[in-house]
Amino acid sequence: MSNRIFNFNAGPAALPLSVLEKVQESFLDFQGSGMSITEISHRSKWFDEVINDACERTKRLLNIDDNYDVLFLQGGASLQFLMAPMNFSIEGKPLDYVNTGTWSTKAIKEAQILGKNVNVVASSEDKNFSYIPKNISFTPDAAYVHITSNNTIKGTQYSSFPDTSNIPIISDMSSDMLSRPFDVSPFGLIYAGAQKNLGPAGVCMVIVRKDLLERIPKETPTMLKYTTFTEKNSMFNTPPCFAVYVVQLVLQWIEEDKKGLENIAKENQEKADLLYKTIDELDFYNGTAEKDSRSLMNVTFRLPDENLEKEFVAAALKNGMGGLKGHRSVGGCRASIYNATDIKAISALVDFMKDFASKNG
Amino acid sequence: MSNRIFNFNAGPAALPLSVLEKVQESFLDFQGSGMSITEISHRSKWFDEVINDACERTKRLLNIDDNYDVLFLQGGASLQFLMAPMNFSIEGKPLDYVNTGTWSTKAIKEAQILGKNVNVVASSEDKNFSYIPKNISFTPDAAYVHITSNNTIKGTQYSSFPDTSNIPIISDMSSDMLSRPFDVSPFGLIYAGAQKNLGPAGVCMVIVRKDLLERIPKETPTMLKYTTFTEKNSMFNTPPCFAVYVVQLVLQWIEEDKKGLENIAKENQEKADLLYKTIDELDFYNGTAEKDSRSLMNVTFRLPDENLEKEFVAAALKNGMGGLKGHRSVGGCRASIYNATDIKAISALVDFMKDFASKNG
Repeated sequence: MSNRIFNFNAGPAALPLSVLEKVQESFLDFQGSGMSITEISHRSKWFDEVINDACERTKRLLNIDDNYDVLFLQGGASLQFLMAPMNFSIEGKPLDYVNTGTWSTKAIKEAQILGKNVNVVASSEDKNFSYIPKNISFTPDAAYVHITSNNTIKGTQYSSFPDTSNIPIISDMSSDMLSRPFDVSPFGLIYAGAQKNLGPAGVCMVIVRKDLLERIPKETPTMLKYTTFTEKNSMFNTPPCFAVYVVQLVLQWIEEDKKGLENIAKENQEKADLLYKTIDELDFYNGTAEKDSRSLMNVTFRLPDENLEKEFVAAALKNGMGGLKGHRSVGGCRASIYNATDIKAISALVDFMKDFASKNG
Repeated sequence: MSNRIFNFNAGPAALPLSVLEKVQESFLDFQGSGMSITEISHRSKWFDEVINDACERTKRLLNIDDNYDVLFLQGGASLQFLMAPMNFSIEGKPLDYVNTGTWSTKAIKEAQILGKNVNVVASSEDKNFSYIPKNISFTPDAAYVHITSNNTIKGTQYSSFPDTSNIPIISDMSSDMLSRPFDVSPFGLIYAGAQKNLGPAGVCMVIVRKDLLERIPKETPTMLKYTTFTEKNSMFNTPPCFAVYVVQLVLQWIEEDKKGLENIAKENQEKADLLYKTIDELDFYNGTAEKDSRSLMNVTFRLPDENLEKEFVAAALKNGMGGLKGHRSVGGCRASIYNATDIKAISALVDFMKDFASKNG
């Protein structure tokens, strides 16, 4: 497909071309069923295979055991901001939250709407969320610690996770899930809207440690209880079948084409290094995140002025590179370079950036 | 596509072939964007056009004015069971519910979990939900009346809606939305999981009358408040873009190919008449719903015994007709014949039914 662009969208974002081609090819007849994936029953053997395979691949990729359930839910990370405190707070114990930007702020707000005792134990708001706080002191009896592993808007990311001394960590990993291997065992809950690293919009991957399920208050509404979905393999009601199917294909691509998370992480590091090196070498560009907090997923940078930024985004698009405008809340430029963004896209962007700087610097 | 079957699934269900072909054709490059519909930003002009067109077509098809908002939400009808009482109950006033089967029962349960004062003002449970209650007395000061317009599992449907004397009606229309024209003005809230008449699983169409929005309690969690979505054109967070896009194409198909709801209703009546006539003429089959409550969407019937029912379903599949098994909670057989099921599929089924009856009767 020669008319495909290099897609640097923050989410929904680029998907592997081979996955898209597979979806397209079988779209009118899924697995010989005589039906589209959008027409088969979620209670059929075909869909059972899709969702079970997606769960198993996730467990294999992250090397997680049966202490965890993998779920595919609706409502995005935004609904998880609510479900996490509703299900996993403990009467009389505080909830520790680390505030690293827009999404953490929203997660904190939802816990507060529920009337929970929220401790913001660390925040990088003092420097416009340009860094990840270090050496955080957590409340010893906290019910959980909530973090946002990668901050799409500000371009920061935890390079390693804080030691919470056995307090379960809950993490929004919407924008870096399955971009690198990590030890899942300190985590009680991980959630990730699929539309960045995992698939299309409309499904949220949730990984929950089973011991936390005992905390859920009995009177919790059905659709907001994790057990509703753990007990029914994510199919209490009709799941977002198409989105789950595309996620399954992306997981297969990570496992079989990319040979797992070690390799994915290596590629992601190389991609980010190439881009940050260009930003640092040319005075024309300024990275907005502190160097030790830089995200490997979302590279945020400024140009000398806003007019040049507009020109940059427009000229890039003319050269076949889309999605480089920064989030509407912060301005500037941003290249989102998730798993599916090929190194070729980065090379093209770097060449363009050098050329643009020499013409306008 | 000669290998496509006649699909009588209850949901996810058959979609118009022309819609599926359109999705397939442009799957790698949506509207010249150089990206798949699954890769474009929900903040882009491309997706704005999709969702705005879907809203406008819905309004035109149902002839509704600006007193209503059309939304596309996640979580299915099951989440609406919760959101409706959470948003639209009024302190001190009862909620009237009509119980016509599994889905009504679930809606009632969610209102009760919230501690609401629920009046089940009518129920057909006495006859295994085989009919739609008539001449219902509603509570004069009820905050709303909740009904389920079509009952997918039991195969019953309101042929006309009850007169509630200005009490706003809230209706789950998941399985007959846009299958016929109706007067929207008595309704305060209509919701419909898309995976029957409207599109793929993963999106729920919601139509809300604006005056009801004033009832929403301030402390309602963000993702459970209708105003969160009415104020942001369904895009407070990332919407299920692909599912909304397919719904848009289905709405276009209803409006342009099928020439609107009057014609759709006429076709649906003809399709159901043909099938019920066959059931009534052959002693071999027994319709399970009372005649005046029969659904035009889900035709439920029994054969002389369960073994024959199994044989029937298996033999039909061999003859290219899928999805005829009744819901796992009730057994028997069911043909779901939503908008996208062509009259040719009904003819083929009727021929098969006659043949099967003559061989086994």
